[in-house]
Amino acid sequence: MDGKFITLEGGEGCGKSTQAKLLCDYLQSKGIETVLTKEPGGTAEGLILRQLLVTGDKDKFDAVTECLLYYADRRNHLTKVVWPALKQGKWVISDRYADSTEAYQYYGYDKRIDFATLQNMYQIVAGDFKPDLTLILDMPPEIGMQRSFAKAAATNTQELRFESRQIAFHNNLRHGFLEIAKREAQRCVVVNANTDIATLQQNIQHIIQERLGV
Amino acid sequence: MDGKFITLEGGEGCGKSTQAKLLCDYLQSKGIETVLTKEPGGTAEGLILRQLLVTGDKDKFDAVTECLLYYADRRNHLTKVVWPALKQGKWVISDRYADSTEAYQYYGYDKRIDFATLQNMYQIVAGDFKPDLTLILDMPPEIGMQRSFAKAAATNTQELRFESRQIAFHNNLRHGFLEIAKREAQRCVVVNANTDIATLQQNIQHIIQERLGV
Repeated sequence: MDGKFITLEGGEGCGKSTQAKLLCDYLQSKGIETVLTKEPGGTAEGLILRQLLVTGDKDKFDAVTECLLYYADRRNHLTKVVWPALKQGKWVISDRYADSTEAYQYYGYDKRIDFATLQNMYQIVAGDFKPDLTLILDMPPEIGMQRSFAKAAATNTQELRFESRQIAFHNNLRHGFLEIAKREAQRCVVVNANTDIATLQQNIQHIIQERLGV
Repeated sequence: MDGKFITLEGGEGCGKSTQAKLLCDYLQSKGIETVLTKEPGGTAEGLILRQLLVTGDKDKFDAVTECLLYYADRRNHLTKVVWPALKQGKWVISDRYADSTEAYQYYGYDKRIDFATLQNMYQIVAGDFKPDLTLILDMPPEIGMQRSFAKAAATNTQELRFESRQIAFHNNLRHGFLEIAKREAQRCVVVNANTDIATLQQNIQHIIQERLGV
């Protein structure tokens, strides 16, 4: 495939969506046709799955059901949005991808999914396909959660299923993302997200320049 | 587990729902506490997945996405409805289960799911758990489709995503169910469904008596 696939990952309130949008604008300004998308919910059907996954009671699914739903959304997203765009030479930025499933449903949960099962699902859905670059936006969960609740109050969103979990869960997430970054250092870069929007975006752009030669 | 798990399978319009209900009444009349349920949609969340799966354009998902959605629904159904009931010693009758996924998404489709992948999904979701008895309601697809469309007109349902496929697809389904029955002869019994409701129910009750000692 010709285009590049960039994913943004991190806990709640770390600024992924804002940074993904700014990065998309930046790449477009460099003449690179770029598609900005997200998981869950990067397709019409995916928005229904998103609603099911990110609203309501935190314990409504077991980890296996939840992972199957995320992977159904992912397969639909890859086949309809990500792969067609990459084949046309476009770049694709996704606000969350498979590392989030690993961080949340494996590292985050006490009743976690089995690691081999999770890898198995990835293979079924994506085979050997991987992002060209993954930016892991890292910050203390306490600050992220404050931001996330402030945003929820301002936008009146019901998407608080994961925010409703205790801080220990969010610490597990952060630990998980950092473990993934260590294991897949070729693909992942950890970025300090505990800074202002412009500084963070500048740092991200530097990484893109270095890693992908923009 | 103490209870018995009975599944009813077959193509569109073969009378599964009606027969499942009558069988439930029969078992209850014999003093067996019985739960009547269905796939997709045997849970509150599953009803949302059912809506996604059985309405709309026939080509809206690829076979892998579709199987993941059916298996997410199945996992949720097993963990919340089927397994808890069986553990309490209740019997469970399900209007469709995993054989439908194999018949539709493997035997039915030209762009079918890989067979090993499908078995893999079953293992992830259910492990070694299997129905105690599966009744495969068999009839010529032309007649089943006529029934199905007549019922749809009478009930004003939008659940016609699979009915919208050509007859060749429905012939594949029938062939698929018969192949499954041949392969798993210990578990499956094929019943001629091209008969009146009372005769079919009588035949089903005979099978239940013979196989499960009611």
